Amino acid sequence: MIFLRDNVLLDSELSLDHVKPRLLGHWGTCPGIILVWSHLNLLIRDQGLEMMFVIGPGHGAPAALAALWLEGSLEKFYPGQYDRNEAGLRNLITRFSVPVRSHINSETPGAIHEGGELGYALAVSFGAAMDNPDMIVTCLVGDADMNSAWHAIKYLDPKESGAVLPILHVNGFKISERTIFGCMDNKEITSLFTGYGYQVRIVEDLEHIEEDLAASLAWAVAEIRKIQAAARSDNPIIKPRWPVLILRTPKGWSGPKKVDGEFIEGSFHSHQVPLPKANKDKGQLEALQEWLSSYDIGSLVPKGNPSDQILNTLPKEDSKKLGQIKASYNPSIGLEEVEWKPFGVEKGQDASCMQTIGSFLDKVFQANPKRIRLFSPDELESNKLAAVLDNTGRNFQWDEYSRAQGGRVIEILSEHCCQGFLQGYTLTGRVGIFPSYESFLGIIHTMMVQYSKFVKIAREVKWRGDLSSINYIETSTWARQEHNGFSHQNPSFIGAVLNLKATAARVYLPPDANCFLSTVDHCIKSKNYVNLMIGSKQPTAVYLTPEEAAEHCRIGASIWNFASTPLSEGTDPDVVLVGIGVEVTFEVIKAAELLKTLCPALKLRVVNVTDLFVVAPDERHPHGLTRERFIELFTKDKPVMFNYHGYPAELQGLLFGRLGMHRMQVNGYQEEGSTTTPFDMMLLNAVSRFDVAKRALTAGAESNEEVKAKLNDYLGDIDKRVQGIRNFISDNGKDPDDMYEIAKFE
Amino acid sequence: MIFLRDNVLLDSELSLDHVKPRLLGHWGTCPGIILVWSHLNLLIRDQGLEMMFVIGPGHGAPAALAALWLEGSLEKFYPGQYDRNEAGLRNLITRFSVPVRSHINSETPGAIHEGGELGYALAVSFGAAMDNPDMIVTCLVGDADMNSAWHAIKYLDPKESGAVLPILHVNGFKISERTIFGCMDNKEITSLFTGYGYQVRIVEDLEHIEEDLAASLAWAVAEIRKIQAAARSDNPIIKPRWPVLILRTPKGWSGPKKVDGEFIEGSFHSHQVPLPKANKDKGQLEALQEWLSSYDIGSLVPKGNPSDQILNTLPKEDSKKLGQIKASYNPSIGLEEVEWKPFGVEKGQDASCMQTIGSFLDKVFQANPKRIRLFSPDELESNKLAAVLDNTGRNFQWDEYSRAQGGRVIEILSEHCCQGFLQGYTLTGRVGIFPSYESFLGIIHTMMVQYSKFVKIAREVKWRGDLSSINYIETSTWARQEHNGFSHQNPSFIGAVLNLKATAARVYLPPDANCFLSTVDHCIKSKNYVNLMIGSKQPTAVYLTPEEAAEHCRIGASIWNFASTPLSEGTDPDVVLVGIGVEVTFEVIKAAELLKTLCPALKLRVVNVTDLFVVAPDERHPHGLTRERFIELFTKDKPVMFNYHGYPAELQGLLFGRLGMHRMQVNGYQEEGSTTTPFDMMLLNAVSRFDVAKRALTAGAESNEEVKAKLNDYLGDIDKRVQGIRNFISDNGKDPDDMYEIAKFE
Repeated sequence: MIFLRDNVLLDSELSLDHVKPRLLGHWGTCPGIILVWSHLNLLIRDQGLEMMFVIGPGHGAPAALAALWLEGSLEKFYPGQYDRNEAGLRNLITRFSVPVRSHINSETPGAIHEGGELGYALAVSFGAAMDNPDMIVTCLVGDADMNSAWHAIKYLDPKESGAVLPILHVNGFKISERTIFGCMDNKEITSLFTGYGYQVRIVEDLEHIEEDLAASLAWAVAEIRKIQAAARSDNPIIKPRWPVLILRTPKGWSGPKKVDGEFIEGSFHSHQVPLPKANKDKGQLEALQEWLSSYDIGSLVPKGNPSDQILNTLPKEDSKKLGQIKASYNPSIGLEEVEWKPFGVEKGQDASCMQTIGSFLDKVFQANPKRIRLFSPDELESNKLAAVLDNTGRNFQWDEYSRAQGGRVIEILSEHCCQGFLQGYTLTGRVGIFPSYESFLGIIHTMMVQYSKFVKIAREVKWRGDLSSINYIETSTWARQEHNGFSHQNPSFIGAVLNLKATAARVYLPPDANCFLSTVDHCIKSKNYVNLMIGSKQPTAVYLTPEEAAEHCRIGASIWNFASTPLSEGTDPDVVLVGIGVEVTFEVIKAAELLKTLCPALKLRVVNVTDLFVVAPDERHPHGLTRERFIELFTKDKPVMFNYHGYPAELQGLLFGRLGMHRMQVNGYQEEGSTTTPFDMMLLNAVSRFDVAKRALTAGAESNEEVKAKLNDYLGDIDKRVQGIRNFISDNGKDPDDMYEIAKFE
Repeated sequence: MIFLRDNVLLDSELSLDHVKPRLLGHWGTCPGIILVWSHLNLLIRDQGLEMMFVIGPGHGAPAALAALWLEGSLEKFYPGQYDRNEAGLRNLITRFSVPVRSHINSETPGAIHEGGELGYALAVSFGAAMDNPDMIVTCLVGDADMNSAWHAIKYLDPKESGAVLPILHVNGFKISERTIFGCMDNKEITSLFTGYGYQVRIVEDLEHIEEDLAASLAWAVAEIRKIQAAARSDNPIIKPRWPVLILRTPKGWSGPKKVDGEFIEGSFHSHQVPLPKANKDKGQLEALQEWLSSYDIGSLVPKGNPSDQILNTLPKEDSKKLGQIKASYNPSIGLEEVEWKPFGVEKGQDASCMQTIGSFLDKVFQANPKRIRLFSPDELESNKLAAVLDNTGRNFQWDEYSRAQGGRVIEILSEHCCQGFLQGYTLTGRVGIFPSYESFLGIIHTMMVQYSKFVKIAREVKWRGDLSSINYIETSTWARQEHNGFSHQNPSFIGAVLNLKATAARVYLPPDANCFLSTVDHCIKSKNYVNLMIGSKQPTAVYLTPEEAAEHCRIGASIWNFASTPLSEGTDPDVVLVGIGVEVTFEVIKAAELLKTLCPALKLRVVNVTDLFVVAPDERHPHGLTRERFIELFTKDKPVMFNYHGYPAELQGLLFGRLGMHRMQVNGYQEEGSTTTPFDMMLLNAVSRFDVAKRALTAGAESNEEVKAKLNDYLGDIDKRVQGIRNFISDNGKDPDDMYEIAKFE
């Protein structure tokens, strides 16, 4: 696949023009992958196992594709293209690496993990095993990978979930150096993985590797069954020692031993293309001929048809083949719906968005005991989401005193594990929610981007079904991390989602608890998106009834008349004030209240945006408001002052192309903060009611003579108020009670 | 510190108004930190060690601040405020948590790590130890942290670098659950850390904890000395087993045992504030009185002056106190300069930016054998930076065959380790460079943001000196990841840097090898910035001589007359074409060439931007061009077409506020890609020469009648060319040779 564009069955001597013009691919890891895949086939054939195979080294695609061709899974999903005959084999080989991809991705049958960014194949596997009690997910981890979720076994309940069978593939080399695992001897490796909590078996007898691997896999499955049987007969093993296999095979095994005096097999030189000049150099071409002939493809696959000997090693039922497991491509499990409005809060009250949705999610969990999970980096209590634990547990198995018996919640202080679990769980048809401190969600930025790429391609793959969206909830935002300080103030994950394809990305900043409820309900029912919801865990004002909230969320942005100056139909205000985000919207409302007393002549309109993408031009995002609707909200030419939760440049980028950009001002988090008071955070970032009011007055004075006449008085009055509050904060170490009631924030 | 705003020496019975109105802080981890700090003092006192202390649990600030007060380090850096007397002690206690921070940060003497985001205190410690042969960095790792760089000992040469002494602090609980380490027994922990390559010693005898810890620390230092002595007498131990201590103490040790029937000491309830109602509830106030009295502060610190018994435990020399180690706050080591221009490439040639700077960096390394390092996630060869290895080594100690003897390069396949090393190394006064595949640098997005926050505050701290910048080089960008495919195409790290404070962030996209040389030279000499440089590893056109490159980089953006239509002074072009980034600039140049033949009537100006921030309004960034200069380059009102390497919305956000935004069009990476050819990547993202040419014609036709008259012909002609190339690519699996010479890209 790496080399040939013709003569794929070696019917004649190789010539230079049989070799592709561009040699691409990663050979080194492939022999080990094919070895494992073949043995998994035997195991499934003999035991009828339900198994998935997650391959960490995603650039080992040639091995995966060869196995998929052999088992007929390519034929099933790409009929007429890669059938099990000469033409199909020829296509498979000659179309690599374009259009057949050189890396495993969502076009690959059986794949639920792309690779590329190392380190989380294992976490994805655990996510796939959760609530899939009969599934064994075999996961191959490359030995260069130092980021894996090895501790994750401690979060898998053997009764309600399936199993992950990790295989650490130690071939000793990365792209240009030895690996850490490759330099560890068997004692060190056994010690390390025993420490993680595994039973370790090392597979390394190259002379008898087939027998060794077959026996080791059978042992591993038997151990898994033992652990599961105990748990399922309500006699669980305390700290069960799940099996792990350490597979030591030479990198690029069976390839050329030496080329131009350099070792290839068993060295980093086999990582990509071992004979890089095979399309130009006669000597390398001969080496290629010798190498490829050594497999005797004519007898293994006579005329492109796999021999019976090989076919007999495959699982009998198609649906058990690793490339055709339904959970890997069309899992289609929905949720039992729960009506959200009964959890709504009375308008005019204060309520915590998180406490409100916590109760709703508790009900959703009860209605869906095996189809939805929440993955959290240990902040549920702190994020005021503890209500989700009212009827389910945390699922941490290693604490012998807690006697955890499954449950909908995983709390593990590793964002990487949470994201991997989320992906594996979602890709196998279930629904996941990932709440986090706002500042630490960015830790999985690149994983999220890679996932969204996987899904983008998956949407183009005809045989893949819909997936639930992945759902992030950011709380404990910078606006209320005044007590934890600057290091806990980082809204940059919004930007990561904004840069995804418009078809995939959704960002919501619901202004109150009822809007948050409506948004969560929408998100967990939606398909194929990356949903990001941002809100407060502290009690905040509730502006809308549940019915009003539903409508506001449906249209994404509305004029809030209750906060605006009453104007006759068709009259434009002097200034439009826009809040996007809970706390900054509250400041906008307070600014409008202040201005109503201070300067009644100023005509204000207050708008709230709950669906961030409405501000983008509609040709750039499907949620973008039409030009007409945009003008309805923001006028044609009046000054618009945005008070935005995130970084201003993000919103400016979104607004680019909208009518009259010069009249728009955007303020938001500007990397100012510290350990201070909540209101001081607003002042530091110039999004306080006073900043908003000053901006409104200054902009309004341009068209309103009454305002203009007394502008300096107004501004002076406001400055005095600010100084008073600054003094109060510095004297008392807290905000005045009429800013925020401190007690609420504890 | 968490509780009292008055009566800090407990001179009278506590009353409710002695207690702060807002109770903030994290008690649980503090007793262990103070225990370790005190013992480190003893050790330094007795052995005269050069030691730094990196504390992973950054919210244990009260413990660190108390120790710093006691050793007089607060007095040194904040004279008159926190002296070692009653007034100073009173300030220390009452000013916590505002203005004294509740988390360790750069205002904390001795601190080079902030905490917040867990998982990399250990990597930072290793970075600090590198090339500091006499330094022992003690690192305390909390037991909730599952991300640490435990394998990093394998990259520390005991001859040229110092040592890290990790202490895993197992107190068993996170914010609301047990920890994984806390649930592992001594056998499991010993096994795990033995597997990582350590000698493990468990410190847990609570009855004799003082003796146990003192003896264990002395043992650890002796083991470190043994390993170092062997290496330094050129008789290195193969796979040296560095010591690690596992410290088991109850969470919140010595605090209240039980409150309202709930266990506090030794449970997660002690994580933050154990008596949260001590300012309102008489019962809790009494418990507070009992607890605080138990320390007998009157005899330990009579009238606020530490007793001799305590003072005797401190290091004798101030400069060895953990809070006053010079390397932690004013390391001030510069680089020996190397002239870059001799490494320049002849104008008109093709050259790889990476190969070119590789040779320069090799020379810089030779001139600075202990003051600069390169940290790379295993991609040096692949990124064509291998020249940096010409005179130094990779430093991986665990490979017994390589006999690594130190060196300037660390290649470890963990971006998190690379970033941690980089931080520790830079914060202790040296210079670090972190090259990476573009798509995977975002993995350390949040770490970079946290680092820049640390530095922002450090710049405001009077007693801290300048630091070298941290320097990122992104290569193997999306534009040339056509062979690795979609998962390897992700320029989002640019956005992360753009959102930093303007005073800290610098982003460069040098258009050719000479500009890249000039930029690298500038960056490694610069101070206190986050520098991001983006370029190509493939040979690309060299447009400027070294002298021209130096000038172009100095001013950040220039009109490239050689590519523009010759116009008389003062005449505006019809259209301005702007390239920002190597490949997209090449496409702009090619578009201009094409248009010169196809439509000579169209008056074009070609601009290249190498310093991204010049486009931002000058009130937003110090590099922003003045309005006048902006008009000189981009005219007042002509259409400006940006061909940008990153996401369009980023650049749009930067441009927001510039004159005439409606005339600007931005194209860039739009999340389209696959395994394909280099030129197809340009087509897919609409940044190819043909896309640029069509945009230029369409925009130019608005003001140029000649162009307008034949516009449809021109566009049709271009569409035909595109179709021809698409056909060629699909027939041949490669680009036509006149697009890019394929051979160059292998």
